[in-house]
Amino acid sequence: MVSPIEHFVNRSLGTWTAQRSGHNLAFRHVEEVESEIRIAPMDPEDPQLTELLASNQVASSAMCCPFSVTWQGTSDWDENATSDGSCLLVPVPESDTTGRLLRSQGYTETIPAVGHYRFSDDGTFVLVTPYERASAEERVWFATDDLRLRVALMRTSSGRGVLQASFSSEIRQRST
Amino acid sequence: MVSPIEHFVNRSLGTWTAQRSGHNLAFRHVEEVESEIRIAPMDPEDPQLTELLASNQVASSAMCCPFSVTWQGTSDWDENATSDGSCLLVPVPESDTTGRLLRSQGYTETIPAVGHYRFSDDGTFVLVTPYERASAEERVWFATDDLRLRVALMRTSSGRGVLQASFSSEIRQRST
Repeated sequence: MVSPIEHFVNRSLGTWTAQRSGHNLAFRHVEEVESEIRIAPMDPEDPQLTELLASNQVASSAMCCPFSVTWQGTSDWDENATSDGSCLLVPVPESDTTGRLLRSQGYTETIPAVGHYRFSDDGTFVLVTPYERASAEERVWFATDDLRLRVALMRTSSGRGVLQASFSSEIRQRST
Repeated sequence: MVSPIEHFVNRSLGTWTAQRSGHNLAFRHVEEVESEIRIAPMDPEDPQLTELLASNQVASSAMCCPFSVTWQGTSDWDENATSDGSCLLVPVPESDTTGRLLRSQGYTETIPAVGHYRFSDDGTFVLVTPYERASAEERVWFATDDLRLRVALMRTSSGRGVLQASFSSEIRQRST
């Protein structure tokens, strides 16, 4: 039987066309970003992976289904600028429905980060990642096998305020 | 002890400034709508409420915390056009975390509708409302007491395809 995290990662593999609407809550500004996201399994022997595990003092036997995410996006704020990047993500299960997620690089800060995930009873993947001055809360779920939805919040470090909320609809690209 | 539905409705009462990003999934078009939403408790003796209960053959003793929603919005598709409306919503609990929701009017069709709700273990209110040619699935949760989030999907009647996904961030208006 496949664990929830393995099932979730397996369903996520592939190339996705994403539309993200970012709501700045203080200024009520909306930013639209279109991007392509590629999620691929990682070779357990990859040196970058070995390094990430070592720096977090995690044994390779403790991880499950490591993967990489590569993205390239265009914002409606500046159509000439593209943002792109990639990171490694390594789930380290603590129970069937909870665990840590190691990242080689965070979304908001270019430093490694460790988040905690759990699955709610309807299968939503909920990830909370503390950063130095804020924390990110992401909820990701599948509306269908080919439509992945994501709501991300950036909270103040106290957790009481929310600076930004964003919504992404990600459609799987069919290989031709 | 207050039931989950009563707690949810009580937290929702008030006036909200909402920003909605609607993602048309087939055409990848995004529509932005700004609106004001007012959620108010209803008088259990209100004749409209009595009529809605009678037309659904529901005894008034079976309902919990009926409320009305009034909205007025402006879309970036046509800034001169405003959309506004109101409807009555009547929860009819079946268990502590599930029940039916009667509406005097649906969001997508101007006919009465009956949806089914349930609360997931993280407190998200999930509502599924079948219509004649589609079904609406809404997830509503509180990021903070003053920030309500909503993701709505419009599914084909088979449930396998999704035509539209939208995200709303709703900020409570403080009385001055």
